[in-house]
Amino acid sequence: MSGNTFGKLFCVTSFGESHGAAIGCVVDGCPPGLTLSEADIQPELDRRKPGTSKYVTQRKEADQVEILSGVFEGKTTGTPIALLIRNTDQRSYDYEKIKQVFRPNHADYAYVQKYGVRDHRGGGRSSARETAVRVAAGAIARKFLHERLGIEIRGCVEQIGEIHCERKDWSAVNSNPFFCADPAKVPALEEMIDTLRSDGDSVGALLYVEARNVPPGLGEPVFDRLDADLAHALMSINAVKGVEIGDGMAVAKMKGTAHRDEMTPQGFLGNHSGGIAGGITTGQTVYARYAIKPTSSITTPGKSIDETGAATDMRTTGRHDPCVGLRATPIGEAMMALVLMDHFLRQRAQNADVNPATPKIPGELP
Amino acid sequence: MSGNTFGKLFCVTSFGESHGAAIGCVVDGCPPGLTLSEADIQPELDRRKPGTSKYVTQRKEADQVEILSGVFEGKTTGTPIALLIRNTDQRSYDYEKIKQVFRPNHADYAYVQKYGVRDHRGGGRSSARETAVRVAAGAIARKFLHERLGIEIRGCVEQIGEIHCERKDWSAVNSNPFFCADPAKVPALEEMIDTLRSDGDSVGALLYVEARNVPPGLGEPVFDRLDADLAHALMSINAVKGVEIGDGMAVAKMKGTAHRDEMTPQGFLGNHSGGIAGGITTGQTVYARYAIKPTSSITTPGKSIDETGAATDMRTTGRHDPCVGLRATPIGEAMMALVLMDHFLRQRAQNADVNPATPKIPGELP
Amino acid sequence: MSGNTFGKLFCVTSFGESHGAAIGCVVDGCPPGLTLSEADIQPELDRRKPGTSKYVTQRKEADQVEILSGVFEGKTTGTPIALLIRNTDQRSYDYEKIKQVFRPNHADYAYVQKYGVRDHRGGGRSSARETAVRVAAGAIARKFLHERLGIEIRGCVEQIGEIHCERKDWSAVNSNPFFCADPAKVPALEEMIDTLRSDGDSVGALLYVEARNVPPGLGEPVFDRLDADLAHALMSINAVKGVEIGDGMAVAKMKGTAHRDEMTPQGFLGNHSGGIAGGITTGQTVYARYAIKPTSSITTPGKSIDETGAATDMRTTGRHDPCVGLRATPIGEAMMALVLMDHFLRQRAQNADVNPATPKIPGELP
Amino acid sequence: MSGNTFGKLFCVTSFGESHGAAIGCVVDGCPPGLTLSEADIQPELDRRKPGTSKYVTQRKEADQVEILSGVFEGKTTGTPIALLIRNTDQRSYDYEKIKQVFRPNHADYAYVQKYGVRDHRGGGRSSARETAVRVAAGAIARKFLHERLGIEIRGCVEQIGEIHCERKDWSAVNSNPFFCADPAKVPALEEMIDTLRSDGDSVGALLYVEARNVPPGLGEPVFDRLDADLAHALMSINAVKGVEIGDGMAVAKMKGTAHRDEMTPQGFLGNHSGGIAGGITTGQTVYARYAIKPTSSITTPGKSIDETGAATDMRTTGRHDPCVGLRATPIGEAMMALVLMDHFLRQRAQNADVNPATPKIPGELP
Repeated sequence: MSGNTFGKLFCVTSFGESHGAAIGCVVDGCPPGLTLSEADIQPELDRRKPGTSKYVTQRKEADQVEILSGVFEGKTTGTPIALLIRNTDQRSYDYEKIKQVFRPNHADYAYVQKYGVRDHRGGGRSSARETAVRVAAGAIARKFLHERLGIEIRGCVEQIGEIHCERKDWSAVNSNPFFCADPAKVPALEEMIDTLRSDGDSVGALLYVEARNVPPGLGEPVFDRLDADLAHALMSINAVKGVEIGDGMAVAKMKGTAHRDEMTPQGFLGNHSGGIAGGITTGQTVYARYAIKPTSSITTPGKSIDETGAATDMRTTGRHDPCVGLRATPIGEAMMALVLMDHFLRQRAQNADVNPATPKIPGELP
Repeated sequence: MSGNTFGKLFCVTSFGESHGAAIGCVVDGCPPGLTLSEADIQPELDRRKPGTSKYVTQRKEADQVEILSGVFEGKTTGTPIALLIRNTDQRSYDYEKIKQVFRPNHADYAYVQKYGVRDHRGGGRSSARETAVRVAAGAIARKFLHERLGIEIRGCVEQIGEIHCERKDWSAVNSNPFFCADPAKVPALEEMIDTLRSDGDSVGALLYVEARNVPPGLGEPVFDRLDADLAHALMSINAVKGVEIGDGMAVAKMKGTAHRDEMTPQGFLGNHSGGIAGGITTGQTVYARYAIKPTSSITTPGKSIDETGAATDMRTTGRHDPCVGLRATPIGEAMMALVLMDHFLRQRAQNADVNPATPKIPGELP
Repeated sequence: MSGNTFGKLFCVTSFGESHGAAIGCVVDGCPPGLTLSEADIQPELDRRKPGTSKYVTQRKEADQVEILSGVFEGKTTGTPIALLIRNTDQRSYDYEKIKQVFRPNHADYAYVQKYGVRDHRGGGRSSARETAVRVAAGAIARKFLHERLGIEIRGCVEQIGEIHCERKDWSAVNSNPFFCADPAKVPALEEMIDTLRSDGDSVGALLYVEARNVPPGLGEPVFDRLDADLAHALMSINAVKGVEIGDGMAVAKMKGTAHRDEMTPQGFLGNHSGGIAGGITTGQTVYARYAIKPTSSITTPGKSIDETGAATDMRTTGRHDPCVGLRATPIGEAMMALVLMDHFLRQRAQNADVNPATPKIPGELP
Repeated sequence: MSGNTFGKLFCVTSFGESHGAAIGCVVDGCPPGLTLSEADIQPELDRRKPGTSKYVTQRKEADQVEILSGVFEGKTTGTPIALLIRNTDQRSYDYEKIKQVFRPNHADYAYVQKYGVRDHRGGGRSSARETAVRVAAGAIARKFLHERLGIEIRGCVEQIGEIHCERKDWSAVNSNPFFCADPAKVPALEEMIDTLRSDGDSVGALLYVEARNVPPGLGEPVFDRLDADLAHALMSINAVKGVEIGDGMAVAKMKGTAHRDEMTPQGFLGNHSGGIAGGITTGQTVYARYAIKPTSSITTPGKSIDETGAATDMRTTGRHDPCVGLRATPIGEAMMALVLMDHFLRQRAQNADVNPATPKIPGELP
């Protein structure tokens, strides 16, 4: 109820603070019989982890995951899978100086008003460090979805500041620090981040995520529409302030004749709705975008208040990302996996026996 | 689990089909002692109901709500409040002709793939008629939030097709059929809808909703951030495909120096984050936007398939809104109320004793 | 969260007060394709309803159920099934005299301490009238379990006061007002109730319920053991103060050699554990007992306090059952059905693919 | 949904197998500001831990708990508290011989039917070892309830086999290995356990648990009655087969004039209902009993089957308790604490403002 559990049938309960002993989670609801070891999870953590290039925070965390339970002789048993990641490179003294002041646009002030206390070390629970846990849990969901249903999930950056990146070459995504599928834009991105860092500034980002080969029928009709659950999932990532499914915000200006995705026995003729109709998947590719605000932790001083409520000037030091969006692609992929996994289990709970008379049509024309 | 309940502490369980006997809901978790009668709910339903102008569907529904339980001698008792709205103007024969075919971009095909069966009359459960229930439940939340905390919730249209509407005059919102706060734009909106209807087309819309006087501290830190729950709530409204909190999608291009909302003892200097930091309210106005796709039910024929999977041409008749966004402002307000109400109860469950040392600062400069 | 919803995948959300407009519920999570009409539910309601013999309360309620949603052309659609039962024979003036006083061992005083207010008419929400709703919802679960899995659920009285009833003749259960499977005891039971009524007293009861043909594998290993959920379900029935699974309380005195249910390929050699091992069904008959306290509403005066806290003498009039256990057999059956239904859906959500190498053994020796 | 989370507002998510790397849990929903360290939890774990006397299993586990998160500078922060207990004395080779056979009345066969696989080492997830986690989580709830509300929770053994123990001397409970408050019975208990062990047999037990100083108003009226949630909690303890609230099963034979707890301004005149009326606490002592079946793991051979379904004879070796009830007193206390904590938070979520006009009366006469 305190909002640290995600999912209703595939439930991820997350714990841990940025500078505490550890972060981790319990994954409850994973079907038995899935081959699973740390080696299935670690690569995803490595994609997200800090310190891998000069464009991201220089905190060095191994992000080494340990499976504590739920796996026996290399297979899941159907019991809870606990994942543990010890924190190793805390430098909490970096935060001593901000102990009594609130960083603007951070959770600091809101936490104090809510809880009376806060763990000021690196943002405590509000730190994006928590998202490592989601990536780890998402890796399990992803493996199941891929092995059992053939679902492929992938994401990339679409915009950073004024630079727009196309989805030209998926094979390039994991070979640059921006998750950019448009290799020609990489030098410009590098230059932008360098400039921002020297300017003491930061920038936002727009990310894209998709799932292919999703079967039709996932999602629930009213409150738990698949798109609503995706919006919840993506907006719950630190710093995300906007979520689009399919054409997203652009639909406000569109006409029905242009937007509707017509159907033929050979496949759908368009996918403006992001693979979801009435909250339920259609068999088309499910896709979404999410916008991440610029990091608030910048070295340019800003006005703030301290714990007594008095005015102060605030300059955030410590080790930060000039663009938190840079590391958020694996997080969006993980959230997509968690949402689909949850709805797959919900679907078979209620509708395992359903065998519709109407044949499935392809997601798109051949 | 089938997704018909919204909220964790203030729970709304919705039921009913567009052309069934009735729609309604059970509101569980309302605190006792709130003065409540049908007269508190009916005005909100009347704002949303169909047939009130020539610009919306001509279905005539009284949308008369009956409180079946949970209220005694004019006050809530703390027990479940059941609300019932009988359907009265079904014309199911309008739908006989679409019984065997799937309307493009409707839930029809997805429902059949999910459930094997569907109630084809007016979309059954997938119809926006269900949202009347949310407006009714939202009216209860809204009354509590207003009386107990002074929270004011209001919304308006911001864009329909190419026409942008400013937030110039809130008093005008309820006196035109578009919930438009920019009265000078009303004639152009009227003309646009008339043209669309004669063209057999439809259009999308962008809506705005805000809550003022929200206390700081509402929202949970990780998955159930207030913005994530708002995104879930707004994206769960029929036809919504994008949600923005604060600056929304625009943050992708912004710099940290421009975006961060600096703080002074006299108040916040900006509200780019929509009144939410780290998922928790700051005491600023909470605001969001949501984009609604153009109605798929249009009279211009489109390609589709029938129940056997064969190709067909489809022309939707029946009574439809040329812009479903026209009636969606009260729904967004209701969802905002439900989210805030739920988080207010969650906040006092965990933190009722909290008395932070730091004084609250105003939401904005005087 | 206010405890008016039962079940996690087959969810029953109950509403209504004894003397309000109506009682009812929303059943969410019923699989599509089940043939269902009021005629499937009404007979179960009729078994429980008041006024059917002189041994129970003389309130005359038709308990006529209306299905408001979720059923189309005679079959469930997978959407929420709302059930409505109008109250028709309220005599609220009977309760005017108890408006200012608290009936001993009733919920009256506890409600006022909890909510500040109470609906004093017939106990409001605390009345056993609410259990009609459970019987109605249970009828749906029962039909599904029977048609889909062949599960048979039945119950009977085992003890009323000092009279013990054997399970001799199941066919007799529905032909006497006590749900007694031991027809020879019926005259003694009749006499006991007559005497109690003239003495202004009441008596408790012990009821038995069983489910046959339950497949192995239902139930979850830790908190949501099938026996734990059954205990929750049965203890949630008004006036129940004890629940036993299998041998129940008697196990405290038993030895392991006597209690353990040995297994052979031909079947289990005993069923001391009530068909549940480690919280999970074994394929044996699941059975339980629940003890119901004597009605507190008796005409013999008792000491109590009024709303100001002052001492008063209290004599309950109105129309009451001298033994609330008399009508509780169908309620226990309904709760058994709801628990099994919920766990059947949970089982197939997680384990739909499981195909164990070990063959199932019969529940008992042939 | 897989039943490894207990509580709705104070949520304990448990993980771990008997012979895996670790057991532990995440406690979500603990209010901030509670002073907490391992030293508050360890003593409760020590009361339950194995190997402390010759009457219980000789497995030597330090049961050393580590707090991984949610505590900062000695106080809870309102974020999830993760607790970790490493397993140290696994002797999994003890279980090699039972790898292919099912122990009668154990979860073995049911697990295989449910999951297809099982962790045979020490029962895996079905082992009572999991209850250490509950005791740890319960210690947090207990501390909060004591400090904030003055609630005192305690338990003791009431019956083992034919030996009945009175509640004569609470101070003796922690100074014998049976949690017996009747010191004169201790030698007989010792002798009984010695005999059972040499006979290769085991015995059941009846335990008692109570909470004093519970405020009125905790519990919800219908499904989540406090007694129903207690029944769920206690029945979810390994091997429990019966639960009684107040007079429990005995109410079946009682009359209303004897059972009802009359009220006076000076206090209640009796407490037959266990401090709960209509599912809600009255301010009286809340008390319950739970019966634990004899250990199924005994050295006397019994009939069983193997993984192929063939008949076999089974003799359980390994290290086991001849009476699992001996260590179950702290578990019952923990479950009582978890239930009360959850309902305290639920109560203040909905009713924090309630200020009833009727004064509270004492739980009992002075």
